[in-house]
Amino acid sequence: MYFPELSERFKQLLAELRGRRVAVLGHLRPDGDCIGSQVALTRVLCSQGIDAIAVNRDDPPRVIQPFVGDTPWALAKDFTPEGYVTMNVDCADPIRVGMLLEGMFPETLANIDHHVSNPSYGRHNFVAPATSATAEVLAGMFFDLGLPVDAVTAQALYVGIATDTGQFRFPTTTGQVFELCARLCACGASPAEVARELFEQEPLAKLKLLRRYLGSLRLYHSGRICIGVLREQDFQETGAEHEDAEGFVDYARDLDGVDIGMLVQEFENQVKGSLRAKTRAYRLDQLAQEFGGGGHAPAAGFNQHRPLEEVCELLLRAAEVHLEKMDRERGTVGA
Amino acid sequence: MYFPELSERFKQLLAELRGRRVAVLGHLRPDGDCIGSQVALTRVLCSQGIDAIAVNRDDPPRVIQPFVGDTPWALAKDFTPEGYVTMNVDCADPIRVGMLLEGMFPETLANIDHHVSNPSYGRHNFVAPATSATAEVLAGMFFDLGLPVDAVTAQALYVGIATDTGQFRFPTTTGQVFELCARLCACGASPAEVARELFEQEPLAKLKLLRRYLGSLRLYHSGRICIGVLREQDFQETGAEHEDAEGFVDYARDLDGVDIGMLVQEFENQVKGSLRAKTRAYRLDQLAQEFGGGGHAPAAGFNQHRPLEEVCELLLRAAEVHLEKMDRERGTVGA
Ligand SMILES: [Mn+2]
Ligand SMILES: [Mn+2]
Repeated sequence: MYFPELSERFKQLLAELRGRRVAVLGHLRPDGDCIGSQVALTRVLCSQGIDAIAVNRDDPPRVIQPFVGDTPWALAKDFTPEGYVTMNVDCADPIRVGMLLEGMFPETLANIDHHVSNPSYGRHNFVAPATSATAEVLAGMFFDLGLPVDAVTAQALYVGIATDTGQFRFPTTTGQVFELCARLCACGASPAEVARELFEQEPLAKLKLLRRYLGSLRLYHSGRICIGVLREQDFQETGAEHEDAEGFVDYARDLDGVDIGMLVQEFENQVKGSLRAKTRAYRLDQLAQEFGGGGHAPAAGFNQHRPLEEVCELLLRAAEVHLEKMDRERGTVGA
Repeated sequence: MYFPELSERFKQLLAELRGRRVAVLGHLRPDGDCIGSQVALTRVLCSQGIDAIAVNRDDPPRVIQPFVGDTPWALAKDFTPEGYVTMNVDCADPIRVGMLLEGMFPETLANIDHHVSNPSYGRHNFVAPATSATAEVLAGMFFDLGLPVDAVTAQALYVGIATDTGQFRFPTTTGQVFELCARLCACGASPAEVARELFEQEPLAKLKLLRRYLGSLRLYHSGRICIGVLREQDFQETGAEHEDAEGFVDYARDLDGVDIGMLVQEFENQVKGSLRAKTRAYRLDQLAQEFGGGGHAPAAGFNQHRPLEEVCELLLRAAEVHLEKMDRERGTVGA
């Protein structure tokens, strides 16, 4: 058993839900783990005589779309919520589904997630903060309970795990992650096909945007902090979409000597910050909270309504203070 | 059992070798799979009462060096071969060990590899062409036989598999690959530590060089061919090393609509071409042969003594002819 306690409760929940209607909700601007988890859970619910549909405020990203397959799916604006209960996946917080869906569903029946900050806001909570992805939690429970994992479900769960582990690079990549991937392959997941969709259909505009991001990188604090920016103009002039900047922040973080990498970008009349650390010791979720955001210890983000220059300046100052505080705390722990 | 037939023969070989001296040889300009396999095999041989040492013409690449640990190791030029028999790993051909080692050891006792072109040139051959890496073959045999896999061995085998699968992206990434990785993690392999060494110590000069390569990309033949160039000047002005350009060609190949991506660079008074295709159907080994080079169907290369501009022009023309020939042949096969 991968998750004995969660799986036991999940089994009881499935029994309760038989014959009912369930909306499987994901978060705003969904990522691979969100969509993969929605697809997988919706399909498994359907296989158990539950009338399930995945519902999202936003469309899946272009590269993730192919993995939805024939899964029942609706956009929030086209969805009539009457008679449905909800299960949220990969949503650290109930407001992450967006105002429209939050308004439709004031209560969350089940909350399945892996974010450490998740306050267990559902009636039933399946939160495993040490796991790599919501898809890992789902895959583990499905295998624990012998539920049917068809090829589309297996592929979707694999996408969730592969994307949320940074293609098996992050510290959350455990032996259990690989074991689950082996079983997903046996159920029909194809790592090469996933790689083809995720990495081998890059728009030229994205590379133009990447050039600009790389050109904007600046080092601070003895080279331990690296910030790069993208302005609305960069998107317009290159023809790139905002989702093309996904992952750029890793170029800043991956530099030798850098502890915290950042991307600050203009986005829909706001300024969006993405923060990445090389280790979870730097608690970027706390740094992001200072700017009204949140996330994981090594990967967090926020949105602000100030101008980009101002955000960069405040962020740099806060990051320097934060970094020194973390250093002191680690020093104390070590002493 | 992962490799029942190979493992049975490997067991017999180990028994024969007890008390003897073995040099474990790898190929020129070794990669992660070569070094990982040498480290792992050397350690396991030592654990079985065999006096083993890894020997290479060239040093391991900077990012692979940390995984050698305390494994017995020598450079070919410092090695005295008397009394040793050899086992080659990851060498498709006996000349791949370099002239010096080939001269020392005209006979190869054992040949452990995964290259489809390997002609089984050893006295004992352990060649599994469908596998992702030589490290996969070794890991499978070690687990089949219950041989001791210590943490350094596990980490080295994981490095071999992770690098030769392109971080679990290539079509050789099977369920068995993930299953072996799960077991390697249980023996002490740490995917995050490997990722830290391989990807998170990037020199700033490399990103500067990448910017230049991205800026040089040009599309031809209805966007199906993408060529980018790096001149000696680009290396000098950015301070980057030639090994920093490793992998850049993937940016060209991974573009949407591109079938063949290329990097043409000035390198030690020569011009070096790197060719990558999205599928093995394009037989880039044949295209590279026209320029005096070779390689695998989806990944090949060559060296030329003409000026860079001339090479680019000739290469583009040859690639267009080659692409159309491949299209015709595929069309014929399909008809
Ligand atoms: Mn997630
Ligand atoms: Mn290899």
